[in-house]
Amino acid sequence: MSLSNRQIIYANTPSPAINPSLDNGTFKLNTTSLPNGRNESIPQDKVLVRVHYLSLDPAMRQWLTAKRSYIAPVERGSVMRGQSIAQVVAVGADLTSQYAAGEWVVAYSGWQEYALLGAKEAQKVTVPAGGRPTDAMSVLGMTGLTAYFGMLEVGQPQPGNTVVVSGAAGATGMVAGQIAKIKGAKRVVGLAGSADKCDFLVKELGFDAAVNYKDADWKKQLKEATPEYIDVFFDNVGGEILDACLARAARDARFAICGAISQYNAAKPQGPSSFMTVISQRVTMKGFIVFDYAKKYSTALNDLATWLSQGKLKRREHIVPGGLEAAPQALVNLYEGANTGKMMVEVAPVEEKARL
Amino acid sequence: MSLSNRQIIYANTPSPAINPSLDNGTFKLNTTSLPNGRNESIPQDKVLVRVHYLSLDPAMRQWLTAKRSYIAPVERGSVMRGQSIAQVVAVGADLTSQYAAGEWVVAYSGWQEYALLGAKEAQKVTVPAGGRPTDAMSVLGMTGLTAYFGMLEVGQPQPGNTVVVSGAAGATGMVAGQIAKIKGAKRVVGLAGSADKCDFLVKELGFDAAVNYKDADWKKQLKEATPEYIDVFFDNVGGEILDACLARAARDARFAICGAISQYNAAKPQGPSSFMTVISQRVTMKGFIVFDYAKKYSTALNDLATWLSQGKLKRREHIVPGGLEAAPQALVNLYEGANTGKMMVEVAPVEEKARL
Repeated sequence: MSLSNRQIIYANTPSPAINPSLDNGTFKLNTTSLPNGRNESIPQDKVLVRVHYLSLDPAMRQWLTAKRSYIAPVERGSVMRGQSIAQVVAVGADLTSQYAAGEWVVAYSGWQEYALLGAKEAQKVTVPAGGRPTDAMSVLGMTGLTAYFGMLEVGQPQPGNTVVVSGAAGATGMVAGQIAKIKGAKRVVGLAGSADKCDFLVKELGFDAAVNYKDADWKKQLKEATPEYIDVFFDNVGGEILDACLARAARDARFAICGAISQYNAAKPQGPSSFMTVISQRVTMKGFIVFDYAKKYSTALNDLATWLSQGKLKRREHIVPGGLEAAPQALVNLYEGANTGKMMVEVAPVEEKARL
Repeated sequence: MSLSNRQIIYANTPSPAINPSLDNGTFKLNTTSLPNGRNESIPQDKVLVRVHYLSLDPAMRQWLTAKRSYIAPVERGSVMRGQSIAQVVAVGADLTSQYAAGEWVVAYSGWQEYALLGAKEAQKVTVPAGGRPTDAMSVLGMTGLTAYFGMLEVGQPQPGNTVVVSGAAGATGMVAGQIAKIKGAKRVVGLAGSADKCDFLVKELGFDAAVNYKDADWKKQLKEATPEYIDVFFDNVGGEILDACLARAARDARFAICGAISQYNAAKPQGPSSFMTVISQRVTMKGFIVFDYAKKYSTALNDLATWLSQGKLKRREHIVPGGLEAAPQALVNLYEGANTGKMMVEVAPVEEKARL
């Protein structure tokens, strides 16, 4: 019998906020059927995978907008795009030398329970000592790599530098700040949206200071936390936070512009009004996309895995229960800062076997 | 008898616009007396110069604001800061081997008719073949150098590139655009504020296209003028123009942020709202100040003088008559885009001898 597969389809353009309802909201549920790989063979050049954890990423809101960007928008009517951690269920005839059932992969599956993927869409995961399969889509995956290249190639912290990271308790920010510290930055300051997150940054990750941008006096706190101004700013947030950090930019500061989560749902995005500082302090602001550094991924992953195993790099996951249909609301919550660490939706627990 | 010297003093903080009235406005007139260098000797380490042409520069508005900047603000009650082209009238005993009466200098005189200057404040001018003394404060001076380093060190145009310059008919912009063309840019487009300026850019300076940003459909014109998007943007204007150019940024574009004349008088400056493009197109925006390239001035001046003598580089002056007291209104007019080319106030014509 065929495999019943539930999917989340991108149905309606957000206007501008995502509506998480599966009944006439931004997304809708759909059910298809797939060959089950037992009494129905799968295509010879595909693997059948079962999705366990969906990656939720700030960039997703941008994918729903038909603007010129680094990646084509998701087409309405198609499965919502996204990475996942999945397990191989069945292997097509051409791929039996590459995959075996039970192996973990980073899957370009989109938001669905199962997927038939080509070899490029299912990257086998090597779980390092002390690691978990899900690390491959966070600290040892896209968010870790984004932090690595943004901090080291764009930010280029030098010994003695003050480094500030916004969205510092998010999957990318927490790694970015720790890398700055590993590389000898004098002072690493995180900006985050709650007292708990700030505690986490200082007490668990070793940031030198953290500022809760929801405090009324956060700009004053930021000033006090950066007495020698800001040499490197790793920005995930944009808007008012970018603005405040520009106002604190040191001479020749490097601003690595990774994201602008505060602006993604804005009908009219806001740019930095402290822009004069770019001139007076000779600031370099550079946007970057992790894909551009693909040739250096293996070196970076090696560094990240080493630091992880040495305990120099810590990570945290924020796992949302509730299965596939929890994803739309979780995405909305991501933009509201609900997560500390990598946010993912548990479609099926690691230990749960596939229903075939 | 002593030399009567009229000065313009910075009197009142603009709020936020400059008030050009000399009666309770931003500036006021003052008269002092100086030793005349004949029957009253001047200090041994000074030269007495007579100012002929005051330089008017967009940066001046910033100098009147007590914000952290690349240069200390002008103090209220002191002579307004500014370069001038001046002629040596008398030479102190220690400097007779360096200066002679009648020589032209670029003077850090401020806005006054005469000044007693140290050797660092009076740089002798070598007028090249076909040149004029005033070139030393425009195409062969600060504005030319600013264009040179901003375009070549920050913008780095490559053959095949599309280069856009804002404030293109200003002293810096017109040189920046021509340098891009000299260096092999495929397409150089100027943004300016009148049809006459646009004609000048295309017909006299050889720009490939020019867009009048006061036209209602200027954004559409800009789009049509940049069919392959913008690789290098040399920005003198900021605000809405920077925003429109960001929206047209090509992949890996370099934005050389030289100035933001549209924002200098704004109570609440506006940053670019198309900021998302910085990420999606991996744009580098870099602010710069010409002073940082001081070690390379001589190479740059040599290039600029060569291009000028070869006819590859054209320049234009916008000379405001009316003497010293015309300066405040001329400065206001500068921010309104009154000038094509280097704006300067004629305190005394070149040929006029000093009254001593």
